[in-house]
Amino acid sequence: MIKVLVLHGPNLNLLGVREPNIYGRVDFQTLNNLILQKAKEREIEVEIKQSNFEGQLIDWIQEYRDWADAIIINPGALTHYSYSLRDALLAFGKPVIEVHISNIYKREEFRHHSVIAPVALGQISGFGVNSYLLALEAIFLYFNK
Amino acid sequence: MIKVLVLHGPNLNLLGVREPNIYGRVDFQTLNNLILQKAKEREIEVEIKQSNFEGQLIDWIQEYRDWADAIIINPGALTHYSYSLRDALLAFGKPVIEVHISNIYKREEFRHHSVIAPVALGQISGFGVNSYLLALEAIFLYFNK
Amino acid sequence: MIKVLVLHGPNLNLLGVREPNIYGRVDFQTLNNLILQKAKEREIEVEIKQSNFEGQLIDWIQEYRDWADAIIINPGALTHYSYSLRDALLAFGKPVIEVHISNIYKREEFRHHSVIAPVALGQISGFGVNSYLLALEAIFLYFNK
Amino acid sequence: MIKVLVLHGPNLNLLGVREPNIYGRVDFQTLNNLILQKAKEREIEVEIKQSNFEGQLIDWIQEYRDWADAIIINPGALTHYSYSLRDALLAFGKPVIEVHISNIYKREEFRHHSVIAPVALGQISGFGVNSYLLALEAIFLYFNK
Amino acid sequence: MIKVLVLHGPNLNLLGVREPNIYGRVDFQTLNNLILQKAKEREIEVEIKQSNFEGQLIDWIQEYRDWADAIIINPGALTHYSYSLRDALLAFGKPVIEVHISNIYKREEFRHHSVIAPVALGQISGFGVNSYLLALEAIFLYFNK
Amino acid sequence: MIKVLVLHGPNLNLLGVREPNIYGRVDFQTLNNLILQKAKEREIEVEIKQSNFEGQLIDWIQEYRDWADAIIINPGALTHYSYSLRDALLAFGKPVIEVHISNIYKREEFRHHSVIAPVALGQISGFGVNSYLLALEAIFLYFNK
Amino acid sequence: MIKVLVLHGPNLNLLGVREPNIYGRVDFQTLNNLILQKAKEREIEVEIKQSNFEGQLIDWIQEYRDWADAIIINPGALTHYSYSLRDALLAFGKPVIEVHISNIYKREEFRHHSVIAPVALGQISGFGVNSYLLALEAIFLYFNK
Amino acid sequence: MIKVLVLHGPNLNLLGVREPNIYGRVDFQTLNNLILQKAKEREIEVEIKQSNFEGQLIDWIQEYRDWADAIIINPGALTHYSYSLRDALLAFGKPVIEVHISNIYKREEFRHHSVIAPVALGQISGFGVNSYLLALEAIFLYFNK
Amino acid sequence: MIKVLVLHGPNLNLLGVREPNIYGRVDFQTLNNLILQKAKEREIEVEIKQSNFEGQLIDWIQEYRDWADAIIINPGALTHYSYSLRDALLAFGKPVIEVHISNIYKREEFRHHSVIAPVALGQISGFGVNSYLLALEAIFLYFNK
Amino acid sequence: MIKVLVLHGPNLNLLGVREPNIYGRVDFQTLNNLILQKAKEREIEVEIKQSNFEGQLIDWIQEYRDWADAIIINPGALTHYSYSLRDALLAFGKPVIEVHISNIYKREEFRHHSVIAPVALGQISGFGVNSYLLALEAIFLYFNK
Amino acid sequence: MIKVLVLHGPNLNLLGVREPNIYGRVDFQTLNNLILQKAKEREIEVEIKQSNFEGQLIDWIQEYRDWADAIIINPGALTHYSYSLRDALLAFGKPVIEVHISNIYKREEFRHHSVIAPVALGQISGFGVNSYLLALEAIFLYFNK
Amino acid sequence: MIKVLVLHGPNLNLLGVREPNIYGRVDFQTLNNLILQKAKEREIEVEIKQSNFEGQLIDWIQEYRDWADAIIINPGALTHYSYSLRDALLAFGKPVIEVHISNIYKREEFRHHSVIAPVALGQISGFGVNSYLLALEAIFLYFNK
Repeated sequence: MIKVLVLHGPNLNLLGVREPNIYGRVDFQTLNNLILQKAKEREIEVEIKQSNFEGQLIDWIQEYRDWADAIIINPGALTHYSYSLRDALLAFGKPVIEVHISNIYKREEFRHHSVIAPVALGQISGFGVNSYLLALEAIFLYFNK
Repeated sequence: MIKVLVLHGPNLNLLGVREPNIYGRVDFQTLNNLILQKAKEREIEVEIKQSNFEGQLIDWIQEYRDWADAIIINPGALTHYSYSLRDALLAFGKPVIEVHISNIYKREEFRHHSVIAPVALGQISGFGVNSYLLALEAIFLYFNK
Repeated sequence: MIKVLVLHGPNLNLLGVREPNIYGRVDFQTLNNLILQKAKEREIEVEIKQSNFEGQLIDWIQEYRDWADAIIINPGALTHYSYSLRDALLAFGKPVIEVHISNIYKREEFRHHSVIAPVALGQISGFGVNSYLLALEAIFLYFNK
Repeated sequence: MIKVLVLHGPNLNLLGVREPNIYGRVDFQTLNNLILQKAKEREIEVEIKQSNFEGQLIDWIQEYRDWADAIIINPGALTHYSYSLRDALLAFGKPVIEVHISNIYKREEFRHHSVIAPVALGQISGFGVNSYLLALEAIFLYFNK
Repeated sequence: MIKVLVLHGPNLNLLGVREPNIYGRVDFQTLNNLILQKAKEREIEVEIKQSNFEGQLIDWIQEYRDWADAIIINPGALTHYSYSLRDALLAFGKPVIEVHISNIYKREEFRHHSVIAPVALGQISGFGVNSYLLALEAIFLYFNK
Repeated sequence: MIKVLVLHGPNLNLLGVREPNIYGRVDFQTLNNLILQKAKEREIEVEIKQSNFEGQLIDWIQEYRDWADAIIINPGALTHYSYSLRDALLAFGKPVIEVHISNIYKREEFRHHSVIAPVALGQISGFGVNSYLLALEAIFLYFNK
Repeated sequence: MIKVLVLHGPNLNLLGVREPNIYGRVDFQTLNNLILQKAKEREIEVEIKQSNFEGQLIDWIQEYRDWADAIIINPGALTHYSYSLRDALLAFGKPVIEVHISNIYKREEFRHHSVIAPVALGQISGFGVNSYLLALEAIFLYFNK
Repeated sequence: MIKVLVLHGPNLNLLGVREPNIYGRVDFQTLNNLILQKAKEREIEVEIKQSNFEGQLIDWIQEYRDWADAIIINPGALTHYSYSLRDALLAFGKPVIEVHISNIYKREEFRHHSVIAPVALGQISGFGVNSYLLALEAIFLYFNK
Repeated sequence: MIKVLVLHGPNLNLLGVREPNIYGRVDFQTLNNLILQKAKEREIEVEIKQSNFEGQLIDWIQEYRDWADAIIINPGALTHYSYSLRDALLAFGKPVIEVHISNIYKREEFRHHSVIAPVALGQISGFGVNSYLLALEAIFLYFNK
Repeated sequence: MIKVLVLHGPNLNLLGVREPNIYGRVDFQTLNNLILQKAKEREIEVEIKQSNFEGQLIDWIQEYRDWADAIIINPGALTHYSYSLRDALLAFGKPVIEVHISNIYKREEFRHHSVIAPVALGQISGFGVNSYLLALEAIFLYFNK
Repeated sequence: MIKVLVLHGPNLNLLGVREPNIYGRVDFQTLNNLILQKAKEREIEVEIKQSNFEGQLIDWIQEYRDWADAIIINPGALTHYSYSLRDALLAFGKPVIEVHISNIYKREEFRHHSVIAPVALGQISGFGVNSYLLALEAIFLYFNK
Repeated sequence: MIKVLVLHGPNLNLLGVREPNIYGRVDFQTLNNLILQKAKEREIEVEIKQSNFEGQLIDWIQEYRDWADAIIINPGALTHYSYSLRDALLAFGKPVIEVHISNIYKREEFRHHSVIAPVALGQISGFGVNSYLLALEAIFLYFNK
């Protein structure tokens, strides 16, 4: 059974509360339930984590290094400057999928550049909470090709 | 039934032949068959087109304006400079999904910037030919939410 | 009698349909009728063409090279990157007027720079469909000074 | 009857004397007469002012705030740095047309950028003294549409 | 008794009239009354001046050089390019406080950079007309520390 | 009674010890006492926190989301790169005031740009520890206007 | 016998007519005759094509993929922005020589950068129509080393 | 007898008072006396003017257009942004010498770029008040070569 | 006896595991043993810490402020953006040596710029784990000069 | 008989030894023999020089000023910064051909810009040692047109 | 008696021969005679040197370190990149005057920036060979103030 | 026995004399003695050279190509622009250590960028003359690992 670590970066726990015109009205708990349900459909085991601390996210990536076959990460605003997170994901050495709820290319200039993307397998951006579900689908396809 | 126009930009017809280390070994015909099969599963009607001419791509976007509910487009290298294509997609006014076979953020500097992304609903990049299948899934999810 | 080639670039055929808040509600046919009427008033013979193909626009510029005394061109989004169009207009060697329906300096950053302007006689931008009529007036004044 | 304030910025009073290869040989008095005559034809009342002082131009914009229906301004070299003039024109709140005698996009790099253009209705550049006459025509068309 | 010169730059006399969504609905006379009242509370003697001329503002800074213990200045759009004003304030040699009614960092790119700030004691931006009152409070605190 | 969360970012606990020529000789405890005393005068309830962890600051912003009517934050060096902090403050949705002890525009180039300022109500910079007291005054004025 | 596809990009058909001070007075037909003659001397079989359409040039590169041993291309102004052409040439996978009639490094800033050069074997620029003949010589030397 | 207009820009009247470590201790009156004395030695007739108004400096350049054979100008901080002053000096059409008391290339980044220099005959910078005397010597040599 | 705090930033605990072609095959424990051994030889007392949290590193720098005579730090990817770490090191006020295992100037563009270097005594980069040993030697030489 | 000075810049004497994957395996002596042989075929008299000193190359350009009808120069890494060499070649006033063994546009960013190219007749880059032979051919064609 | 080392950089020995429209028709020998004559008038002892080698110029600066009271240097194109020359002049520690025959601010972009100017006492540019004579005058004034 | 070529670039012979606040008071002869002594301790044979000529440094690198096992180089200001020196060191093909006496990252902007670093094994900067001794230690460790 494929094992996936799903990481939510800073402020994603506010989903549904924070700027709903950008991030939608689905709340954080509901999102996680949708992820669990989709994972079940695709027979993927998932572990879901959220932190506002860059260091905590890195610690988790290191801890799940052996357990996880892949990581799905929405790095939140860390996307744009956390080279430490990038190094941790690079050291992970297995497929990483970067997801964004909003289309980051439609927003402020600083959000157009991801320091994470060059070390990811791929990036999915702009489909609301569906971005996570598509990432799971991508992992399913990747490991069943 | 949802109707989707799938557009392949310049040089995508060489798939499987051209730089297989980057674009994979699946050839163009096979890719289109995979798209048709996935569309069928999701009960989506698709029309697939390829051209090396920016103008032709724009013509098709205009012609399918009424018929199509959504567009999936891999603009090839036009991604990085074709503001005309961007304007055509913007004028389309319905969901557009930008897909890339390779992870454009891992490649040459000029490929990191998409002039299409700001007018797309979302972008899927880096999953090989699966990027197209994920786009179809995204459309399925979008219209069934 | 002065002879003028009026060229509409990509997507201008969608006038009145596409983003009316930016481009206004006058449709393409009406615009061309207004041009013809104004031309008649000023005793200018006009030939009007539209294409979504950069190559086609260049072909026309070359074909009308001898016939036309001047060119009025709205290059659409080609304004911002088509150095080939620029070269064709430069080779034309007679007055070229660049027109824009919207004020390109009020819009996205990439629209602030025209690669065509340095080879034009002058530029008229922001007056809606009147931009074309003012261009005809400019030609009238130019040849009657 | 439409009322228009015509403002000439720094050094425009030297017209016909200063670099005639760029600005032409029509002198300042003649230009103003041409403006008055064209205005008369279009039944526009005009008030013409020139100053080498940015502050004076702003004072006039404020003083004519109620009287004028529109402003035609050739800001001279203030075009390229006078954010104060821009703010005054923005506060005016009615149509502003920016005109240039020469094609500013054909000249030194610093002349390619106008800080005024984003707050103008439109810009007319490169038609010699005719630029002013076309601006009057643009106002005529604007108020009679 | 502390003596303070309060300088309003270009277009600030239009307060309450000009773009009230940005600058608020308090008019210029009311602002000055609020300043006078606050100054009285803090036993500060103030002299208030406004000009649309950079040169006039510099002349006043030079004239009040001996009289004033501090300057509060809202340079308006001169904030972004007037190195001459900067030099005058630097030559003043006593505390200068730069105030802005709106939060300049929320607005157009060009407003994010102040050429005045590096020669000021401090900057207060974004509190509407209260920015001036806070500047008076800052002077009170500065001279009573 | 207005409730305000006062946040001190990295290294501010070293106040009075660290580079006194830039940050002054008032120590951290004294600063907090001054804040408490000023708050009392203005009948504002304050909660004061300091952390060297970006994640901890974000956690607090989220925890005090309901309790606080406003936030006063000196983000320390996080000012210049913490888009995560920016997102947290944006999600807070109520007035945020950014304060700096030193005038950041007088110092190293990298300190001239604040990623926090565009989401703040306003910014107060350069008045030593008084910057915090002025921020409290600004909140007092804001809620009593 | 070595087979070479010679491609002329936009506006090269105007050779001898367009800006003779830059491009020389040899006309397009004469150039092609010179190429044929030189090819004959070096026992190279050549196919010569010209188009103003980027898409057409790409189509030809794909069509002659098997036939041609090498391509000589003067991409005209497409040199500076056509990443699609670059991709087509890269996919060709055999030697490509980029030629320019004029010395592009002596002209406008935008002409100094070639997006084609990084995928070519080599570049020959500035020798008038001889640039093509030198390219043929280069191919002769390349295949006979 | 050669006639020279000597123009001092903003804040130069504060010479000897303002930042003496940069500008020296010679005061403005003494500087002008030195200029007059040197001019007398070289049989040059000089007219000396100072203004804090860009517009006034331009007015003088226009007024002395016929009288003056040359202009010596220290534009003060206008050096770095006054394209209007540049245009006025360009229109003057006779030799202009730009002088600076301090070495502008040793100071803040923004002082390294002069918008005046490209229209001057030459520039003399860094010799204290002697810069003016050297400019007079340069004019003497220029007209006696 | 000289006391030195040795700090390892994010992901350095993965040494020997992570990208051995760049960071070498010596593991983290071995590195620390080498450091301890070298320190013993040079009679330096060392305290070694590692964290993936920027905040934790800053806390340690503050805690060891009195104890340590010098700091040796490999900030990992924080090198390139952590101005907070920089401020903490600056506040430390005693010698800081920045070390890197790999030669950061041979790698990705973003690794070429260190925000830490300007506040360090010196930098040692590229000698594998020996970089740490050289830093200890540098401290030995520094305190015995 | 045409006379040509062939100049090799720094490190070219290491040809065949230095990075053969980039510069090929032909050694310096062999290259010079190939040049001599080709020159003989085309009845060109050549003088070949190599130096690691910019100054020596300039001295030779000056010394051979009268003798040489043309210069072929491979400036090595001086290509990218030696404005002195550029000035010397400009002063030479007769045809200069810049050659490069490798395709400089395929290599490090800094090698993409030649400060020599704007003063050369033309540039030949990427053909290995054949670049020199093509330069001789170019000179032959140039003088026999 | 004041002693001055006059240094001419690369290509200045070609004076009068090289691009006379820029550098004038006075030849190198005549220039040196003019310098000697002017020096005699001002009772300055001069030593004049020219080299095309950066290293030679540095050697001379070091050799004349004790003898010379000042240096007049025209660094030629080394002006724009020779940080080594800059360091040598900085180490000289006595007044250095940078002279240019042409007005470098009127020429190619790369000539607008001098790496020497920040370490010079002052710069004199644009007065033809008189620039040197003015530099001697400047030294005379400097040592007699 | 390991053999090391120690190269000192321009102006390093002035050590102890030139700007002692930056480079320290140890003179050049003493530095070389320290190097010889340290080398002896580590049983390294050294050859020490200094030149102000870039060309001479390159010649030595070529001459000692076979003899030397490693190079220690302080390129002085050539660090920042000598791509020729970089190429010579790259061609050397054995370990190169770049040393700087001062911390180049604390100084002027232009000193922050080394064109040498990407071809060196490692860089040691900021330890005064100890930088050289640490480089020798680094070589000792490198060859004894």
